[in-house]
Amino acid sequence: MDVVSEPPDREHAFEAFPANARGVIRELFKRRRDVRHFDPGRELPAATLQVILEAAHAAPSVGLSQPWRFILTRDRQRRARIRDNFLACRAREADRFSGSRKERYLALKLEGIMEAPLNICVAADLREHDEATLGTIVQPDTLRASVVCAVQNLWLAARAEGVGVGWVSIVEPNVLCEEFALPTGIEPIAYLCVGYPSRSYRRPMLEEEGWKTGVPLADVLFEESWREAPR
Amino acid sequence: MDVVSEPPDREHAFEAFPANARGVIRELFKRRRDVRHFDPGRELPAATLQVILEAAHAAPSVGLSQPWRFILTRDRQRRARIRDNFLACRAREADRFSGSRKERYLALKLEGIMEAPLNICVAADLREHDEATLGTIVQPDTLRASVVCAVQNLWLAARAEGVGVGWVSIVEPNVLCEEFALPTGIEPIAYLCVGYPSRSYRRPMLEEEGWKTGVPLADVLFEESWREAPR
Repeated sequence: MDVVSEPPDREHAFEAFPANARGVIRELFKRRRDVRHFDPGRELPAATLQVILEAAHAAPSVGLSQPWRFILTRDRQRRARIRDNFLACRAREADRFSGSRKERYLALKLEGIMEAPLNICVAADLREHDEATLGTIVQPDTLRASVVCAVQNLWLAARAEGVGVGWVSIVEPNVLCEEFALPTGIEPIAYLCVGYPSRSYRRPMLEEEGWKTGVPLADVLFEESWREAPR
Repeated sequence: MDVVSEPPDREHAFEAFPANARGVIRELFKRRRDVRHFDPGRELPAATLQVILEAAHAAPSVGLSQPWRFILTRDRQRRARIRDNFLACRAREADRFSGSRKERYLALKLEGIMEAPLNICVAADLREHDEATLGTIVQPDTLRASVVCAVQNLWLAARAEGVGVGWVSIVEPNVLCEEFALPTGIEPIAYLCVGYPSRSYRRPMLEEEGWKTGVPLADVLFEESWREAPR
């Protein structure tokens, strides 16, 4: 690895990355996409999966709790049942839209559960252990947030490897609890489809399909206090 | 930017990053730390802050909702009040530990609210807008998760620039709502201290200080179904 050399001593362990490395990292954020179109015939090499999971496991966690749990699934029957639940939930969600918007909603590809060679259920272990977790006294939800940080690391690391990740939120948590036999206190946070994409994604798919357009950064930026953002 | 060249055509828009770029990205995950020691005299250049916020704004969001809101604060009086609340909450949390563990807890540096030149309150806009948000029918919590994805992007982008970020979870959400005049439906998700570190962080600080040790990846990895992880 020639772009970033190991810092020479402790004092410099937090220095900025070199300019070309910073450029790489900026590109990474720009090119990460939510992927729903997969090449079903192309499995992830074990080494690639390992790199991606190690990135997830390097995420920050409140009180070093590391509450993330990754359940890898390839079982086609299990995935078919999960996809059936997706279809049922999608039908319910479609009713939130009317007329042409409902038609367009139903035409969107929102998951790749069966095409992706790998699905991952990422869960949070919210159970009490031997000792309280530092940092959770007034914001216990930061345990769930830690798991989301791991998902985002996974997503970015996958993109670097050319691997697509899609987060399927249109599935009932209870179904995931049943499918993966999650005990009380283990909560599913993210259901991910993982594989090599079968099409490109230059912009967010919902933008490319004309469903919605993103807002500029200035609209979500405030100084010192809330003001109503432009709509 | 010479490490990653623009993909030549649409077909290749999702190709893997080159090997040396992938090496940079692996290093980024390894070197990100939760920072609590800041150089109070070193302000962030505006261009650096812009790069960091743009990375956050490039995060994934359910239904392209982009529910993140970033409230930058430098006001010393406001920060002093927030730190007072941190101290009160920390005193309560200390009571969760006993004997030498309590002493060690109280000796840990858990925030850099006043030393960091910049604090950012990252909030989620959970209000209903003109149309339902696609993808939230059975998992509305994915709106909060989207905001956490933005925080993690911010954290990583900051690390690349040599900028430290610390997430302060020992502060009451209600205090943040009051300080930043958040309307109903806007929920604080993360309170961040941002600035140049005044010390290095080779490993998570809670490990360096001997508070806790992380577990290996194998302990959080499952195939097809839950099993109890080794303790």
